[in-house]
Amino acid sequence: MRISFLGLGLMGGPMAGRLIASGHDLTVWNRDTAKMQPLADMGATLAATPAGAVAGAEAVITMLTDGAAVRSVLDSMAESLQPGTLFIDMSSIAPAQARRHADLLAVRGVQALDAPVSGGTAGARDGTLAIMVGGEASAFEAAHPVFAPLGRAIRVGGAGAGQVAKLCNQQIVAITIGAVAEALHLAERAGADPAAMRAAIRGGFAESRILELHGARMLARDFTPGGRSSIQLKDLDNILKLAGEANAATPLSTMMRERYATLVQAMGQGELDHSAILLELEAQSAGLSPNRT
Amino acid sequence: MRISFLGLGLMGGPMAGRLIASGHDLTVWNRDTAKMQPLADMGATLAATPAGAVAGAEAVITMLTDGAAVRSVLDSMAESLQPGTLFIDMSSIAPAQARRHADLLAVRGVQALDAPVSGGTAGARDGTLAIMVGGEASAFEAAHPVFAPLGRAIRVGGAGAGQVAKLCNQQIVAITIGAVAEALHLAERAGADPAAMRAAIRGGFAESRILELHGARMLARDFTPGGRSSIQLKDLDNILKLAGEANAATPLSTMMRERYATLVQAMGQGELDHSAILLELEAQSAGLSPNRT
Repeated sequence: MRISFLGLGLMGGPMAGRLIASGHDLTVWNRDTAKMQPLADMGATLAATPAGAVAGAEAVITMLTDGAAVRSVLDSMAESLQPGTLFIDMSSIAPAQARRHADLLAVRGVQALDAPVSGGTAGARDGTLAIMVGGEASAFEAAHPVFAPLGRAIRVGGAGAGQVAKLCNQQIVAITIGAVAEALHLAERAGADPAAMRAAIRGGFAESRILELHGARMLARDFTPGGRSSIQLKDLDNILKLAGEANAATPLSTMMRERYATLVQAMGQGELDHSAILLELEAQSAGLSPNRT
Repeated sequence: MRISFLGLGLMGGPMAGRLIASGHDLTVWNRDTAKMQPLADMGATLAATPAGAVAGAEAVITMLTDGAAVRSVLDSMAESLQPGTLFIDMSSIAPAQARRHADLLAVRGVQALDAPVSGGTAGARDGTLAIMVGGEASAFEAAHPVFAPLGRAIRVGGAGAGQVAKLCNQQIVAITIGAVAEALHLAERAGADPAAMRAAIRGGFAESRILELHGARMLARDFTPGGRSSIQLKDLDNILKLAGEANAATPLSTMMRERYATLVQAMGQGELDHSAILLELEAQSAGLSPNRT
């Protein structure tokens, strides 16, 4: 397919590379033009503007920082989108904004999918991303050749539902990080070896990717990101906004939002990996100590 | 080894069976004598009392309901334990109580290990239990032939530390169940298909045994236990007691304790599987609805 790919960051770059390698005809654009060169070397056509990139495309993919960036790019190229083009936004943005974009594009005869991903840069490089897709079933079918080289795509509902699923994913991630931190911290305080405790419970009902990956980071006290705490806080803000719109109770997410706000704002640790919630927990315990008066 | 096994319930029965099958010489006792017959059929010697069971044993294993049951059995047989016997309590009891039992037995020259397990009846049957062991390193070494047929044993510290690790495990389980419930509930309320959302995020950072097992139960709304909510509440009470003794902050566990108390006491659902915390969450959301005045 003739595909335009807009946004060649840490995720978009390797994703565009995989689409070229699987035989698609790619035109690419990025705000920082230096990032376009590796794709040119692989055979992509370069475009100077979003509007220039999308002319004649069968599918347009955006992989940008946030909803404002997507909207800005959309506004600058909407006139150039042909009716019948498939627009696939793989950025992580608010569900309500994804629905607005779909409505705007429908007026122009363009079918839109929201298709955020999980799996990080390793998943982008290896084509093993989890792709959560919202939009019409017919558009999802048409997008199959685009998704196949990138990972495992599952349609979860209409416009915006992909973004909802991404937030649900982030919700589980944040709370499970909190669970693992709390258990490692309790083990240490109560006289069990936290590393041995973690080793002992691996593979049982407590097993998770978070226990494996973030648990190891906590034990090593290596909070190099990974996923930044500031981003986790932004995700939790979006989760609570969505939950408010949907009248859904989210007691654990609400607590984790407050705790990440403390870590990022009061403690100034937004650049640390989200496993650093352990530091916020330790600060809570320091406040509990009977030796502190 | 000559092993006495006291307590042949859902877990103890298959564990004793595996020890016989691996060549150990077993004497068994159970309060309800009917449960001894299958072990007798496998070649175990039956005992009428705990004291009768432990005479001449190299190792004594208890697998009982709670700390009170262990203490009662210990009191009734302590006079019959020979110095040098290895006492292994595989029941799940409070860490402080495990330490008291170890102290009592040390006076008699008996080495004690606390060695609670995780992995359920399937793990007991298949010999794949996670065994979390507290006690002296020498006793742990001596117990190797006992643990090997039952699962993977890891020493996590001194007396009581095995019970600490078990509570840490239960802590992660309870909170992760809460995380999965909250995500499935938000997906449903916000217009994504919860089953498709779960399928889409499987294998990513949100992956866990709880997402796999308890997530499936929540989607099917099949709350047949599994692990009873009343037991989860008891575990959380023990977790908070331990955390209080250790001055460890446990904000998520504290919240889950209150929520399980609501589910079990106010809603009367203690017999349901612990994945039924979804019902408590749905009740919270019903209270949020703008249509409810």
